[in-house]
Amino acid sequence: MNRILKAGILAGAASCAIGGTVVAQGSAQGSDDELRQTAAAVFGPVPDKVDEVRGNKLSVAQVELGKLLFFEPRLSRSHVISCNTCHNVGTGGADNVPTSIGHGWQKGPRNSPTVLNAVFNAAQFWDGRAADLAEQAKGPVQAGVEMNNTPDRVVETLKSMPEYVEHFRAAFPKDADPVSFDNMALAIEAFEATLVTPGARFDRYIAGDDEALDAQEKRGLGLFIDSGCVSCHNGSNFGGQAYFPFGVIEKPGAAILPSGDKGRFAVTQTASDEYVFRAAPLRNVELTAPYFHSGQVWDLEQAVSIMGNAQLGRELQAEEAKAIAAFLRTLTGRQPAVEYPILPKSSATTPKPE
Amino acid sequence: MNRILKAGILAGAASCAIGGTVVAQGSAQGSDDELRQTAAAVFGPVPDKVDEVRGNKLSVAQVELGKLLFFEPRLSRSHVISCNTCHNVGTGGADNVPTSIGHGWQKGPRNSPTVLNAVFNAAQFWDGRAADLAEQAKGPVQAGVEMNNTPDRVVETLKSMPEYVEHFRAAFPKDADPVSFDNMALAIEAFEATLVTPGARFDRYIAGDDEALDAQEKRGLGLFIDSGCVSCHNGSNFGGQAYFPFGVIEKPGAAILPSGDKGRFAVTQTASDEYVFRAAPLRNVELTAPYFHSGQVWDLEQAVSIMGNAQLGRELQAEEAKAIAAFLRTLTGRQPAVEYPILPKSSATTPKPE
Repeated sequence: MNRILKAGILAGAASCAIGGTVVAQGSAQGSDDELRQTAAAVFGPVPDKVDEVRGNKLSVAQVELGKLLFFEPRLSRSHVISCNTCHNVGTGGADNVPTSIGHGWQKGPRNSPTVLNAVFNAAQFWDGRAADLAEQAKGPVQAGVEMNNTPDRVVETLKSMPEYVEHFRAAFPKDADPVSFDNMALAIEAFEATLVTPGARFDRYIAGDDEALDAQEKRGLGLFIDSGCVSCHNGSNFGGQAYFPFGVIEKPGAAILPSGDKGRFAVTQTASDEYVFRAAPLRNVELTAPYFHSGQVWDLEQAVSIMGNAQLGRELQAEEAKAIAAFLRTLTGRQPAVEYPILPKSSATTPKPE
Repeated sequence: MNRILKAGILAGAASCAIGGTVVAQGSAQGSDDELRQTAAAVFGPVPDKVDEVRGNKLSVAQVELGKLLFFEPRLSRSHVISCNTCHNVGTGGADNVPTSIGHGWQKGPRNSPTVLNAVFNAAQFWDGRAADLAEQAKGPVQAGVEMNNTPDRVVETLKSMPEYVEHFRAAFPKDADPVSFDNMALAIEAFEATLVTPGARFDRYIAGDDEALDAQEKRGLGLFIDSGCVSCHNGSNFGGQAYFPFGVIEKPGAAILPSGDKGRFAVTQTASDEYVFRAAPLRNVELTAPYFHSGQVWDLEQAVSIMGNAQLGRELQAEEAKAIAAFLRTLTGRQPAVEYPILPKSSATTPKPE
């Protein structure tokens, strides 16, 4: 079967939105051109810049405010944890530990997803319980095991600092009361939307640079498509678009798929959503170990093999897993250049850390 | 008595090294010129740049490596805590909590001193137990209540990442085995030496800009000198040069001076060093609350009043404490512009977080 058609069918079967770009191609099967065209059709590059979210143009003032807030430890009750603690822009947008450490050194239930390119995901969190990054941003701030704060206390904190009040006014000029928990979240989303990683070798390849991938990487790309990985991991973020059971064919062991975490079932209370998770976006995946929602697998080749068994019912040969992993490493893009923000100073009325 | 002579005598009495710049002046007592000249003589500005430490020229490669290491959470056993966690360059070079939170959410015994301008201090830590920033950098990495790591494990971690090995080679080209715990510390010191804050209003004032301070701030500066604060807080960092008992005249209460922490006594085992601490450097002090080694005082005016009683035996009037605090706020300089570093990626042999 023509590779592009096959990819299209797979994507369609899995109900993935890939923008209707799947088209039949006439080029010879297995040729470089065909592979590139298929890849361009089902994946697509990371754009250089994101200018709007949900149709709203992002303003410089919103992005600047969002950057302050993203690095702001006073959003947490302890004044020690910021968004960047678990979504570290210097380490692939994640924290590279199995599950994040939060307030009181509590360990969260799931591995921290990368913030890089997260704006391209259809929904946020491993179970997609937040529709967008703004909704997502409100979660960890309030979670007892993460920042353990409350919206009221956050707003009180931000209002206590004249510099923040000014920033909120500039970012939300039409609002009568701009310093709000909702606007905090919108500003964080605006900054996070700038954390995209264009220029990956894969993106150069689909743009026409045949030398950008070597033979093993191209073989890995072909395997990624032909084996069916593409069914769930597609679109410009190689995932993040839809939900799938972890263990379509065969459930992984309890270390990797702990029975207590039923994934999207907690969101929908629908039996068919037991152990269903959002397909992990794979951009920069070489930087975001350990893998899976449980964060129990450190090796990318091993993660690929586990997925072969669990999702495709296929024992990948070592050489195949290696080629796919090599291909996945070509998804690492230019990491964001972020100047560390100088944060507003506390005032006498700023709530103290607890 | 002429203010400059008085400041000189006070400084001399307290055995402070101020570079022999105290000279008698002929200008009229109380005049702006005299105040400025005295201030310039006993304090001095923060330089725009530090190029060398202990006579060693800092190389770009050392500073760059040091920046990576300063933001490197894998120096900690948990892979969650970096130097920047407690010496946050976005919040005055400190963490703004009473005492720092470290491994396992343990609270350290003392307030985190600012890293900004720390290169100008005669020794590091509240008790001066580290001769310089390189020696200092080794402490928190190993402290059980901070990063809880070991030199061997740190070196193993750094050697596991080819990018780090390259950086160490470039930074220490003459070393046969450049990736070492000592070189880690030297590189961190090199980066920290760049974290200086020139351009404070006070510095503009002593450079001749009479408008840089208002009347209250000038009154505060005069009080700071005439009341004797200058005896301990002098030099370009307004402290950090010598050791003094906390409570020369009257010991503060146990909340502020806990009896269990005998300060420099732990370093020298000398009875006269009980409750002796390094005079806190006061640059950017408005950004580094809470105050004192115990971190129990949040209000700068209150901290000034406590010092008046404890060190000078003088009940400062509210207006005086306010003027001194207003003056101290003129010591805030340009905060460092630091681009967040993209850290080397872990390899299969990188030790896992614990």
